[in-house]
Amino acid sequence: MYATQADFVGGTDVLSNSRVESYIRANSFERPTLVLDTDRVADRFHALRAGLGQAAIHYAVKANPAREVIERLVGLGCHFDAASRGEIELCLGLGAAPHQISFGNTVKRVADIAFAHRAGVTLFAADAEEELDKIAEHAPGAEVYIRVLVTASQADWPLSRKFGCAPAKVAPLMARAVALGLRPAGLSFHVGSQTRRADMWVPVLNEVAEIWHAARAEGYDLDLLNIGGGFPAYYGEDVQPPALYAAEVMRLVTERFGAVPRVMAEPGRGMVAEAGAIAAEVMLVSQKSDDDTYRWVYLDIGKFSGLAETMDEAIRYQFATDRDHEATGPCILAGPSCDSADVLYEKRPVQLPVGLRSGDKVIIRNCGAYTSSYSSVGFNGFPPLDVVVI
Amino acid sequence: MYATQADFVGGTDVLSNSRVESYIRANSFERPTLVLDTDRVADRFHALRAGLGQAAIHYAVKANPAREVIERLVGLGCHFDAASRGEIELCLGLGAAPHQISFGNTVKRVADIAFAHRAGVTLFAADAEEELDKIAEHAPGAEVYIRVLVTASQADWPLSRKFGCAPAKVAPLMARAVALGLRPAGLSFHVGSQTRRADMWVPVLNEVAEIWHAARAEGYDLDLLNIGGGFPAYYGEDVQPPALYAAEVMRLVTERFGAVPRVMAEPGRGMVAEAGAIAAEVMLVSQKSDDDTYRWVYLDIGKFSGLAETMDEAIRYQFATDRDHEATGPCILAGPSCDSADVLYEKRPVQLPVGLRSGDKVIIRNCGAYTSSYSSVGFNGFPPLDVVVI
Repeated sequence: MYATQADFVGGTDVLSNSRVESYIRANSFERPTLVLDTDRVADRFHALRAGLGQAAIHYAVKANPAREVIERLVGLGCHFDAASRGEIELCLGLGAAPHQISFGNTVKRVADIAFAHRAGVTLFAADAEEELDKIAEHAPGAEVYIRVLVTASQADWPLSRKFGCAPAKVAPLMARAVALGLRPAGLSFHVGSQTRRADMWVPVLNEVAEIWHAARAEGYDLDLLNIGGGFPAYYGEDVQPPALYAAEVMRLVTERFGAVPRVMAEPGRGMVAEAGAIAAEVMLVSQKSDDDTYRWVYLDIGKFSGLAETMDEAIRYQFATDRDHEATGPCILAGPSCDSADVLYEKRPVQLPVGLRSGDKVIIRNCGAYTSSYSSVGFNGFPPLDVVVI
Repeated sequence: MYATQADFVGGTDVLSNSRVESYIRANSFERPTLVLDTDRVADRFHALRAGLGQAAIHYAVKANPAREVIERLVGLGCHFDAASRGEIELCLGLGAAPHQISFGNTVKRVADIAFAHRAGVTLFAADAEEELDKIAEHAPGAEVYIRVLVTASQADWPLSRKFGCAPAKVAPLMARAVALGLRPAGLSFHVGSQTRRADMWVPVLNEVAEIWHAARAEGYDLDLLNIGGGFPAYYGEDVQPPALYAAEVMRLVTERFGAVPRVMAEPGRGMVAEAGAIAAEVMLVSQKSDDDTYRWVYLDIGKFSGLAETMDEAIRYQFATDRDHEATGPCILAGPSCDSADVLYEKRPVQLPVGLRSGDKVIIRNCGAYTSSYSSVGFNGFPPLDVVVI
């Protein structure tokens, strides 16, 4: 299931024999359940550390905030990237030290900034004047890094223009930070979630390096480069093994930035996606009319109960059933809610066994990231995605 | 705030003076909060009943499952359209009788069908052979209505092909229902959520009437027509007042179907949307670069914490602030999460006051439907949307 150092990931045989899939096959579930194996998280942490070398790994808590995942990573000495007070409290409560936590959301509630400051968190992200003002008032003297907007992403999960400032604003924001008594330590960016190959980082790194060197030329003594996330998971298309991928990214970084005193990376999906699978069930198989090419397959999990990343069919999960030896045919896949928008894959249908029917178990592979916490509180009266850690 | 019988809805003055908005102005909130006024739900129920006449009103619970809303509607004699066991239990627990509840999801968990049958629910939806098999096995002898797929919707919230069978399948499904010992009582369809004018029902009603008369010609003694939802709420574009709208729909129905013994309607949005508003807060106002035309405004609520219906910018909420007397400028509106897809309105920016800044209160109008239950359990560590009933 995991990428090896030697070559690209691929085979589903390894996946089938994973602890998570064996557990799903051996048990029955009353409702859709995410089964997580924290040993896989630990393996991935070690692989990324091997590749990233001196860079500090700040796990992006939002990818999967399960207590067992955070506890395991705390034990391994991992650092954390938090999006809110809730995530900071979670990490602190499970043993992370304040200096191991960065407050990486560029849009922070004022009360959350004050809380983080009192708790001892000293590193904050910003991309706008007003955010610097908020940080200066509620976390005086803090270190900040400025997030820049990059344009050249080749990632699978779309990046919008939501985060980051234009290159021309970096120096004015740093000047303002200094004037406000903050310490502008460096830059951050995000190459885009699920960037499948290290060489896809090149255009983005080129953009950011130019901004970095310009800021240094203007006299800002930058010592922190936050390279963000983008570390991929296997969803059926080849991805490089994590240690190799991370080492290659670091090589590209050093080539462009030289010896940066502090590098941070924020893997989320790349840390946890492959550590989990969802146990789901077929609720109905139908044809809209007798001459339809496609069958409609309705699962007990959908867009509003954990599979939000199927939005625009961006992330394409892999499926395993007990009928995978049968012939397959194209299916449109939908969720269980009465919401017409709760359709997972329609533009590019999924091949599933012809004998598939109501009651069949379906394993949705590599679902450890961005599923459980995206789940709705109870849309259509369906309970949120259950999580079991084995 | 409400449409009157006399003319189209429009003015925001009435909204500003509503109990809900007065309550939001007079209080402060620690997190985004949906404030609901069940008197408004009751008013709307009476208006719809006035227009719908003999038709049974089955409130679509998924639109807002707040206990206080269900309790109030039970007290008024309303019936319910449930999507799952969870919603059936909710209604029964608050005093609804089993015969007042229809199980309208065409994709039902087998255990949920069995539960509903034991609880005394006798009316089920289906659009496929396998679903009829499941119902026959777990709710023997039940009444079913067949949902048909319509193509001519002019609604604001997109209908997909997810629900319903092609016209040619209606008779075969009815034959199968009879063979399985079920009673095929009639048809259902959905004109599409947020269908703003009654005349927009015409093409869909024409389609369904043809199917209805064909099934009767084949010897099926249909006595139940479920006209579904589609009843609109005011989001800034003119909508007809509810009693007038409902009466006009019933006139169009009678014109095409004649005197149908049992008509059911399933308003969801049309029953509760205008009964609630969300108290939100500005977290950041910024410009990506100094020459940007648009400001970015980040709220403390977004796509994953209640405003899921902003998907593809389909539902366009209205906003009120304390600075509405100021000049306005175009803003891109985004949510608070670190998710790049959490942008509410970008293609069609929103006009907001030029002085708007972090900490300002924002009222999001007519948010009583499809918000609280869509909210995620805690994406990015943000708690789910809070609900207060006044």
